[in-house]
Amino acid sequence: MARRAELIAIGRKLFADTSYDALSMDDIARQAHVAKGLIYYYFQSKRGYYLAIIQDSVADLVTYAASGLELEPVGRVHRTIDSYLRYAEHNQAAYRTIVSGGVGFDAEVHAIRDGVREAIVATIAEGAYGRSDIAQVPRMGLLAWVCSVEGAALDWIDRPRLSRETMRELLVKTLGGSMRAIEEMDPAYPAPAPARRDDG
Amino acid sequence: MARRAELIAIGRKLFADTSYDALSMDDIARQAHVAKGLIYYYFQSKRGYYLAIIQDSVADLVTYAASGLELEPVGRVHRTIDSYLRYAEHNQAAYRTIVSGGVGFDAEVHAIRDGVREAIVATIAEGAYGRSDIAQVPRMGLLAWVCSVEGAALDWIDRPRLSRETMRELLVKTLGGSMRAIEEMDPAYPAPAPARRDDG
Repeated sequence: MARRAELIAIGRKLFADTSYDALSMDDIARQAHVAKGLIYYYFQSKRGYYLAIIQDSVADLVTYAASGLELEPVGRVHRTIDSYLRYAEHNQAAYRTIVSGGVGFDAEVHAIRDGVREAIVATIAEGAYGRSDIAQVPRMGLLAWVCSVEGAALDWIDRPRLSRETMRELLVKTLGGSMRAIEEMDPAYPAPAPARRDDG
Repeated sequence: MARRAELIAIGRKLFADTSYDALSMDDIARQAHVAKGLIYYYFQSKRGYYLAIIQDSVADLVTYAASGLELEPVGRVHRTIDSYLRYAEHNQAAYRTIVSGGVGFDAEVHAIRDGVREAIVATIAEGAYGRSDIAQVPRMGLLAWVCSVEGAALDWIDRPRLSRETMRELLVKTLGGSMRAIEEMDPAYPAPAPARRDDG
């Protein structure tokens, strides 16, 4: 009998490139080789199953983005952005759902998205300023940059005209630009040295 | 008898701070002092009425953002960002709808949002590079910045902890940072002089 984690792993594969509406519970049960009742037992509804899958998927993204503490800051930023873009590329339907705010006006998916945004803002703040509890201006500056990555990645998976490497370089550089903008607004939040170089 | 444009003007007021779901056609007809049939006559459905309102509202935003050709570039950027933030502030429900992608997974509202984004990208490109037909890297860099403005403004209207002036200054500076990032990626697209100053 499949355990909950196994059903989530199967669901992640099924929903990775298929939208919520396009899969029925019958499809899911058939493709997962389990009785439909088992999915209802663990997740109550298709929606409950889907939210569990998205939460699990997003947890990977956040964990990975927040890891790499052993790397120097530039390497860490590169890795975080690269893993974010890979996630978008390899989980297109889930990524679209999260960033577009889910199925309908979806408060739960909005909350998941806001959690991802705040986790990434906190990760960058830790790396750049040594703490995640920051003032409103740097928070807004970093949040804006995270939103730029969301929008850019969404456009990119729909129309992949640039390589992932080019996307990553561009977003690393715009992060540097955002950090310099934050420093100009509030010198208590100086941009880290690599972001200050013109070739950064 | 109310004309179509009058019904749109009334609808813009009604929907400016009330979500789509919260207003019924009966409410609308009563508050507009017209027969419900008149609204159906012009717009076929509540959804048709709503889309017409959003299109009209967005047209203002885009027209204003693209105007000000008589101003020098810095003044124009300031004015564009300021008018964008004012629009978000004074049309919160409409703004949330457009940026969050509408009621449900809404292809028509997504298309409206994409149109706004591309219009703003084209406006900035005209001002900065003298043409709106630009390569993929500068397009992506400017698009990312427009997405950062969307996300930042959405967060700001929900939690207004910064003044509009501070928001505008921050976003002007991050635009400068994005343009410098674009120039580093592709020297054929140099950042305009004001964006190059460290105090820009």
